[in-house]
Amino acid sequence: MPRILRVAGAQTGPIQRADSRARTLSRLIALLEEAAGQGARLVVFPELALTTFFPRWPMEEAELLAHFERAMPNPDVQPLFDRAQALGVGFYLGYAELTEEGRRFNTAITVGPDGRILGKYRKIHLPGSREIRAGQRYQQLEKRYFEYGDLGFPAFRGPAAWGSPVLGMLVCNDRRWPEAWRCYGLQGVELMMMGYNSAAYDPNGGEGESAELRTFHSTLAVQANAYMNATWAVSVAKAGVEDGAGLIGGSVIVDPNGIVVAGARTLEDEVIVADVDFDACRQGKEKMFNFAAHRRPQWYRPIVEQVGAVPPPA
Amino acid sequence: MPRILRVAGAQTGPIQRADSRARTLSRLIALLEEAAGQGARLVVFPELALTTFFPRWPMEEAELLAHFERAMPNPDVQPLFDRAQALGVGFYLGYAELTEEGRRFNTAITVGPDGRILGKYRKIHLPGSREIRAGQRYQQLEKRYFEYGDLGFPAFRGPAAWGSPVLGMLVCNDRRWPEAWRCYGLQGVELMMMGYNSAAYDPNGGEGESAELRTFHSTLAVQANAYMNATWAVSVAKAGVEDGAGLIGGSVIVDPNGIVVAGARTLEDEVIVADVDFDACRQGKEKMFNFAAHRRPQWYRPIVEQVGAVPPPA
Repeated sequence: MPRILRVAGAQTGPIQRADSRARTLSRLIALLEEAAGQGARLVVFPELALTTFFPRWPMEEAELLAHFERAMPNPDVQPLFDRAQALGVGFYLGYAELTEEGRRFNTAITVGPDGRILGKYRKIHLPGSREIRAGQRYQQLEKRYFEYGDLGFPAFRGPAAWGSPVLGMLVCNDRRWPEAWRCYGLQGVELMMMGYNSAAYDPNGGEGESAELRTFHSTLAVQANAYMNATWAVSVAKAGVEDGAGLIGGSVIVDPNGIVVAGARTLEDEVIVADVDFDACRQGKEKMFNFAAHRRPQWYRPIVEQVGAVPPPA
Repeated sequence: MPRILRVAGAQTGPIQRADSRARTLSRLIALLEEAAGQGARLVVFPELALTTFFPRWPMEEAELLAHFERAMPNPDVQPLFDRAQALGVGFYLGYAELTEEGRRFNTAITVGPDGRILGKYRKIHLPGSREIRAGQRYQQLEKRYFEYGDLGFPAFRGPAAWGSPVLGMLVCNDRRWPEAWRCYGLQGVELMMMGYNSAAYDPNGGEGESAELRTFHSTLAVQANAYMNATWAVSVAKAGVEDGAGLIGGSVIVDPNGIVVAGARTLEDEVIVADVDFDACRQGKEKMFNFAAHRRPQWYRPIVEQVGAVPPPA
């Protein structure tokens, strides 16, 4: 039986700090409906899809916590869950998670077509800094506002109606770390989902990489890691100029050969779709990347036994 | 002081089984001279650069061992060492190594401008099979003819005249394995060197990937792993139709952004060169891929604790 699922990436344009939660949710629902109208049965939204990318500002506790979800779903996002269930569509959603114990994570969930949460992931590779950098208008305070993810890289099965595929989630910067992909690859992942907010330029006006180069990096990492783990990947941006800071677009759907099969053309709300044939992963998993036949873990120990680089003596 | 080294990739066309060792060596020396004439001070040759890709055939012991080097250098290859030293050029060379104890490895060495061997690597990711596949004209018997490399991934320093760069070596299939790159990345590698013999199609006439797709895979893996480890990379093919079996070309020099800065255009003997600025690795190593700041090895344990993929229960 063919295991083919039509999957969408729902890129969003910027979500400004001043935008109401209701307005943002209505945009996500519109994207969901557009994707469903194109036949998609699984829709991937960006990282922190319910808010602006708030780690760019120093904030006091109360202001900060207003950006977090205390439960998922909750009354604010219930209309998205309801609409998705009515359409029979599942989705990946990135959001800021506040636990009952007051812990904060940069989280993603995947929701099944029945509205049930199939899997949860908490971002492990937090970029940025813990300390506020003096004199800079824009910060990157993910290490201050979030704890490092504590769930590992937990693959999970999609429902039988999707062909019971092995699914995995990453968030933003995780997609540049081959260790993260490999941990899913070692669980036989067939579709990796990830959302991101990635700077298009230095918002403080310093020298830096061009938006073109940053988009190239984003796509390159997804293509190669998809290939090297013989998996499909959907990588979805929040894009455009958000509260004065530019974000790259470049949302893509990539096949297990590392080929981009669908890509966003704008920096705005935009749906991309592709038919994902999970069995197209088999060629890579059984031959070139037959891990059982070819990996040599006894030589990989530095990957877990050291954190930073230690160059040979000069 | 700028740390810029002009580096060459010396792609070779096919080396037929019937070609004499003297003829092959004269081709390598001609490539070395051409590279030196273009100002290169380090030249990267392919995997198994002294012979045809002999693992494609079943062989008896005596015939097999004729393809191996019992010492390095040895009288057959001394002219290459001598010419390189006279030109003040270093080189990476792939060859089949037979040790005094009779052990066999698919090996690469890097030789300094003074003729001294700076580093040795033995291929860890051996593809192919141990058993001869019945009824197939062409085999891939690397797992039969070689032991798995036993030296790990040992980075080493180039000479002061090169700017004392941190260098690393891989062989062929290794370049598709992010674990291998990361082990060098964790030693602060600034230039990765690798040679390869990669099939352009199934020589037994079965269905398979196109040469174009295989070349894309080869380049993609090098680009992304160079980017994710903030290192330069030189990846060099033996190319063309060798004893009736096609090999991809696609030799490239890639910068720490993952951008191809030089690439071969033929499937024949061809030199590519680029000026490698080792300090261009610093941006990546200090920011995006500052391993000490961002890696989370406690979550990477599956990479060393399991070999094959273990999917979640269906």
